[in-house]
Amino acid sequence: MEGAMSDLTRRLTEVLPGNVLTGGQISDDYAHDEALTAVAVRPFAVVRPGNAGEIASVLAIAAELGVPVTARGAGTGLAGACIPAANGIVLSLERMNRILEIDTDNHVAVVQAGVTLSQLDEALAPFGLVYPVYPGENSATIGGNVATNAGGMRAVKYGVTRHHVLGLEAVLGTGEIIRTGGRFVKSTTGYDLTQLIAGSEGTLAVVTEAILKLCPRPKFSTTVLAPFASLAEVSSAVPGIVRSGINPVILEYVDSTGLNRITANVGLDLGIPDHVQTAATAYLIVVVEQHIEGRLDEDVERLAEQLVNLGALDVYVLPLHSSASLFEAREKAFWVLKEMGVDDIVDVVVPRASVPEYLERVRAISERQETRIGAVGHAGDGNVHLSVFQPDAGKRHEVMRAILREGIALGGAISAEHGIGREKKAYFLEFEDPAKLALMRRIKTAFDPQGILNPGTLLG
Amino acid sequence: MEGAMSDLTRRLTEVLPGNVLTGGQISDDYAHDEALTAVAVRPFAVVRPGNAGEIASVLAIAAELGVPVTARGAGTGLAGACIPAANGIVLSLERMNRILEIDTDNHVAVVQAGVTLSQLDEALAPFGLVYPVYPGENSATIGGNVATNAGGMRAVKYGVTRHHVLGLEAVLGTGEIIRTGGRFVKSTTGYDLTQLIAGSEGTLAVVTEAILKLCPRPKFSTTVLAPFASLAEVSSAVPGIVRSGINPVILEYVDSTGLNRITANVGLDLGIPDHVQTAATAYLIVVVEQHIEGRLDEDVERLAEQLVNLGALDVYVLPLHSSASLFEAREKAFWVLKEMGVDDIVDVVVPRASVPEYLERVRAISERQETRIGAVGHAGDGNVHLSVFQPDAGKRHEVMRAILREGIALGGAISAEHGIGREKKAYFLEFEDPAKLALMRRIKTAFDPQGILNPGTLLG
Repeated sequence: MEGAMSDLTRRLTEVLPGNVLTGGQISDDYAHDEALTAVAVRPFAVVRPGNAGEIASVLAIAAELGVPVTARGAGTGLAGACIPAANGIVLSLERMNRILEIDTDNHVAVVQAGVTLSQLDEALAPFGLVYPVYPGENSATIGGNVATNAGGMRAVKYGVTRHHVLGLEAVLGTGEIIRTGGRFVKSTTGYDLTQLIAGSEGTLAVVTEAILKLCPRPKFSTTVLAPFASLAEVSSAVPGIVRSGINPVILEYVDSTGLNRITANVGLDLGIPDHVQTAATAYLIVVVEQHIEGRLDEDVERLAEQLVNLGALDVYVLPLHSSASLFEAREKAFWVLKEMGVDDIVDVVVPRASVPEYLERVRAISERQETRIGAVGHAGDGNVHLSVFQPDAGKRHEVMRAILREGIALGGAISAEHGIGREKKAYFLEFEDPAKLALMRRIKTAFDPQGILNPGTLLG
Repeated sequence: MEGAMSDLTRRLTEVLPGNVLTGGQISDDYAHDEALTAVAVRPFAVVRPGNAGEIASVLAIAAELGVPVTARGAGTGLAGACIPAANGIVLSLERMNRILEIDTDNHVAVVQAGVTLSQLDEALAPFGLVYPVYPGENSATIGGNVATNAGGMRAVKYGVTRHHVLGLEAVLGTGEIIRTGGRFVKSTTGYDLTQLIAGSEGTLAVVTEAILKLCPRPKFSTTVLAPFASLAEVSSAVPGIVRSGINPVILEYVDSTGLNRITANVGLDLGIPDHVQTAATAYLIVVVEQHIEGRLDEDVERLAEQLVNLGALDVYVLPLHSSASLFEAREKAFWVLKEMGVDDIVDVVVPRASVPEYLERVRAISERQETRIGAVGHAGDGNVHLSVFQPDAGKRHEVMRAILREGIALGGAISAEHGIGREKKAYFLEFEDPAKLALMRRIKTAFDPQGILNPGTLLG
């Protein structure tokens, strides 16, 4: 075994001199992501390739020797999908962090997998363009976002990562480099490998480069906050707002406890009078964008009118700094929960009209299982985030099963945006149709016949 | 052989009494689609199942006996993808034509595969909703549209079929029925089988039901026609219009010969003065939509100003009836070409900024090969439609190869929306990366281990 490992080190070093780390050279960071319950695992080696050719060489060696390989971006994932195998290799994309092209004629950016969301946004702003997917964690990499099909708050208008990935360069488990798609949205030329790799959590191929679809960057935006007496009213207001044609970019709900918690965390006072705060149990946060300033005011006026008709207790147009603070606070919600000692998190998706029914069922589970469960979510797209406070692992597992089963029963899915990874794998394998699991395993084998890519996640 | 065939007939009839056609009972319609060069083939049998369970039974029998099965919607395809094998079964979805649900809260329609675009549009209009994909042939079925990932003129704003398919019911080549996706846009729960089946031209699974994403139906729209002195000016105007934030729903170019031909065909006079017609060599057709009437006028004004700045000779806002006639005429372009004796058609896609360069290269091919080639296209999305007039099959093949090779060289793909089918298969197999072809074949085997689904198309 030791001989085999030193043989592996030697061969990796031949390919990547100076960029192979083993033993004490490996920082603990490479052993985990931000998942709450998955156990950190130190890999045998960390490699830091500089291009797709080097990755191909690493994968060819790994396939030959049967060594697991786990690709890693910024490690900001929440499902343990980039936790490596103990005898495996972490393939870090940290050195592949170049924006290769901003193509303003085709509204496309071509980036290496290790480029971060904040890096890309900074580069696009001067061109009046935006990559509009907004999972909330701007230090995440595009490669990681593609692997998890990252979602976020703007999905109601812009969709999620897969809707903005037009093409990829990727390395198969065989060590073959392929290019998929291109600078166009329209193609029926063989199977859509781009969309198959997106969301596959590193189990089919290592993404090395992505062609991203950009949008014109809206010049004006306003945030509206509407308190409601009940969450059911919030949720039933949502379809009407979507249908109105205002095309909101963000449509979030948060219960009053949640809002108080996240605003208190950043010391933000939204200026809501006490009597309204007392009457409100849930809030809708709506952001509208426009390319033309006058239209924004009109849209906000129409929206406010509609919200009041739909039962809002009042409507607050937030000043720019409050709005920025609110979203900054919202992005930190996970960290606030972590400080509060949350034991597990859920990012189930249900049809958006089923959100009130789903939350009702979750409330029943919470009572039955004597477990505190907090809720916050993307009302526009049916993505519900739950925080489960239950230190007993066995009991927590039962709560999680019940929560996920109810989501599926309402026509939903286990994960909207975090992915399955290591954390949700047991639930996925339990609840998914066995015929589909068998099909996915055959697809996995088509890409990765030796099974070296990210074993232990998703399919097992 | 004859014994085996009568055994097949007997077993199919057991599953589908009264809905198995053989021999003289089979209409010639089942032998072809609308492809120009693919040869019609009469199948051994036509079956007309009424539900997914019956389809599963047919596929299980076919898999056991190794009989090819070709699914068929309305037969309006342009690539020969639903031409059956001579010893095979045509599986017609004609009886599965029910709209199962229009879900106004989730903005979703659930339809059987045999529902037509016109049927769906008629059902959605009263709800103020629209399925915005507009390939132009309204008698086509949703199942066929999913199989070919149908595109059309509205892709610049709404994307293509795959962007509106949220979930599927489908039957694998094994006879297993699976359900994919759901009434949501956001999910990272295993591989995206929905997007893999979309555009796979009936080679991976038979689609029986689709969950479609709907949009609010815009109340107001206007068509603007702008003549330009050169096609290069038309094409270079496009990125600016896309970036403006006007968000046009249609952005088509057509050369003056093309425009004259399609308008003459329906007797439409667009009222363009003679001196402008003489100076114009190409036209841009832009359609803008709005939910609010006043904004439409503003948008049209801004657009007109921008078009003039970008070099338009003039700008015409078309009266409603002219606009309707123009698009009706545009939809009939294929039939006009057919009457003119066109020998083959191409629907290549290139990055939209490369359209002028591509057309220049096509012009050079046309001259070099002494072959008339007409061009019309979707300027907003880089999809170029070429009509090749060359009766000599050998020479035509060379012209087609050259045309497709230049598209690929510019970063494009062979087919934007018609698909590969039987007609483009030889080119696809010649030009596609062998590593990707091998991967696609392994994926095909994962879905259809016996290779019964639509052999002879796409991959061979």
